[in-house]
Amino acid sequence: MSDEFAIIKRYFIQTQHQSGSVDLGVGDDAALFTIADHHQCVITTDALISGKHFFPDTDPYRLGQKSLAVNLSDLAAMGAQPIAFTLALALPQADESWLSAYSRGLLDTAAEFRCDLIGGDTTSSDKLMLSITAIGQVPCGLAIRRDTAQIGDDIWVTGTLGDASLALSMLQNHAMTSQDDHLRLIRSRLESPTPRISTGILLRSIANSMLDLSDGLAGDLKHILKASAVSARIDLDNLPTSATLQQYPILTQWQHAVSGGDDYELCFTAPISHRSSISSLHNQTGVPCTRIGTIATPTLAQPHIISWQSSKHPEQVPHTQHWSGYTHF
Amino acid sequence: MSDEFAIIKRYFIQTQHQSGSVDLGVGDDAALFTIADHHQCVITTDALISGKHFFPDTDPYRLGQKSLAVNLSDLAAMGAQPIAFTLALALPQADESWLSAYSRGLLDTAAEFRCDLIGGDTTSSDKLMLSITAIGQVPCGLAIRRDTAQIGDDIWVTGTLGDASLALSMLQNHAMTSQDDHLRLIRSRLESPTPRISTGILLRSIANSMLDLSDGLAGDLKHILKASAVSARIDLDNLPTSATLQQYPILTQWQHAVSGGDDYELCFTAPISHRSSISSLHNQTGVPCTRIGTIATPTLAQPHIISWQSSKHPEQVPHTQHWSGYTHF
Repeated sequence: MSDEFAIIKRYFIQTQHQSGSVDLGVGDDAALFTIADHHQCVITTDALISGKHFFPDTDPYRLGQKSLAVNLSDLAAMGAQPIAFTLALALPQADESWLSAYSRGLLDTAAEFRCDLIGGDTTSSDKLMLSITAIGQVPCGLAIRRDTAQIGDDIWVTGTLGDASLALSMLQNHAMTSQDDHLRLIRSRLESPTPRISTGILLRSIANSMLDLSDGLAGDLKHILKASAVSARIDLDNLPTSATLQQYPILTQWQHAVSGGDDYELCFTAPISHRSSISSLHNQTGVPCTRIGTIATPTLAQPHIISWQSSKHPEQVPHTQHWSGYTHF
Repeated sequence: MSDEFAIIKRYFIQTQHQSGSVDLGVGDDAALFTIADHHQCVITTDALISGKHFFPDTDPYRLGQKSLAVNLSDLAAMGAQPIAFTLALALPQADESWLSAYSRGLLDTAAEFRCDLIGGDTTSSDKLMLSITAIGQVPCGLAIRRDTAQIGDDIWVTGTLGDASLALSMLQNHAMTSQDDHLRLIRSRLESPTPRISTGILLRSIANSMLDLSDGLAGDLKHILKASAVSARIDLDNLPTSATLQQYPILTQWQHAVSGGDDYELCFTAPISHRSSISSLHNQTGVPCTRIGTIATPTLAQPHIISWQSSKHPEQVPHTQHWSGYTHF
């Protein structure tokens, strides 16, 4: 039994704030920060529960990284610059080695993205639960929403798709030894995804709509289509996948890249006039953008449908309903 | 098994925002709101866990009210005006009657304080857990902190102390029938506390330091004393208590008013020159402020100590160590 305040102080108090926007951090009833002139504040909340969103034996350092990264990915998807976050932590016991590693992972990612831990709540619970609320800012009117895709827009994704899902299936199926090398290569895509903050910011005046891929391309793209009242055509031959995933049969590749969750890549739409500037973002961010399809006119019978196409393996394209996003209940 | 988005939509989407500050609510990767010119943003997070912070059979409507109220109380303690909040909800099953009552309680309190639900996360879990992050704003430099109490300040509290703690002990001890009338009178103080928003705002240019009483006067006042490096004298004869609590022996009254949690009243310090203006706040807010003590010079041997005094019952004043705030581990 330790004192709550002592735990918080020992592991979670940052001695220096890095965002330049925080006026008062952990330790009062609430924290204070300043939004720049002519900017809007952006806020997002995610909850992660042991046994549901991560394995109970997940490396706590990587869990610290991921628990913040998934929230920063939501900020990236709005084109926002991170400022700060709060943490609600419910844990079975004040296990100091776990807390030490978890807080280092959390604060290392916080430092990388100049996002300050400014508040929260720590309590005991049978089951480990984490909830993070992240705050960012974006110039007024430049946030990239889901409901503003335009017919004729190209559809793009950052990075590669499907590795996190492949790694998860290996861990769930206790990967055979022959797959150990594969798992080693892609495990970090599942356990410590990288939020695409720089790309999101550079897309502010380029993308018409955007979101991050947390539940799989098939399910998440549907949110843009429904909100914008449009349809989409996706060319499966263009889905960017890693060299590791490419060693699997084409249907397995598609399954992970289309239905697999936890990619935390950005999916966005943009006018065709921006093709060359989007392709060249790679030089500034180190993260490639790949064009995978087109926003199409919805039909009355089938509004906001995704039409999956492949000229290389046309006979293998499954029926649409087989691919859907992950749901939590 | 219901779809997460359908649940959220049905119970938690507000059709109209009331704060006047929200630009984009639930439904995108993140929400957007605007802070007024020359204002700072105020943020606070609280977690509530079934069986720990509330009884599993707590009336869900009142739980909805309380889960937001405890966060608004933190905003009140900074002198902030609420704007919006996010909700992370982990629940064993999508029980529609529970969700319906909980969301009504939550949104009724939100409407009362013009604070909009603008985001969150819903997931399943063995145990019901709630985490709310509330956002408010305060004119730059006018937030009322814990570390700015001045020697010679009066110490004040709003409302009455100890009823929530008395109600909790009755419920824990399965109150005898003779106490039913008492419990009826004070149960709402435990289950649906009222955040002192108006008082907090009116104290902006009056109070030197402030916090809200969630873990009991003895424990919470210590936070001001430590942060401000001062001591305090409290006159137990002046502690404001309800007519119900006053029917109990004096030591029981003190125990609940000093060590009991969940009051969610404000405790603040202010120069003696403000006595009459503080006393007259009652006319504007309907909530009385009572002067209970003085901020004193710390001694080297006993810094930030509370000296408890009573001229009416001097022989009953317990040793200081017997009174301390509630800790979570």
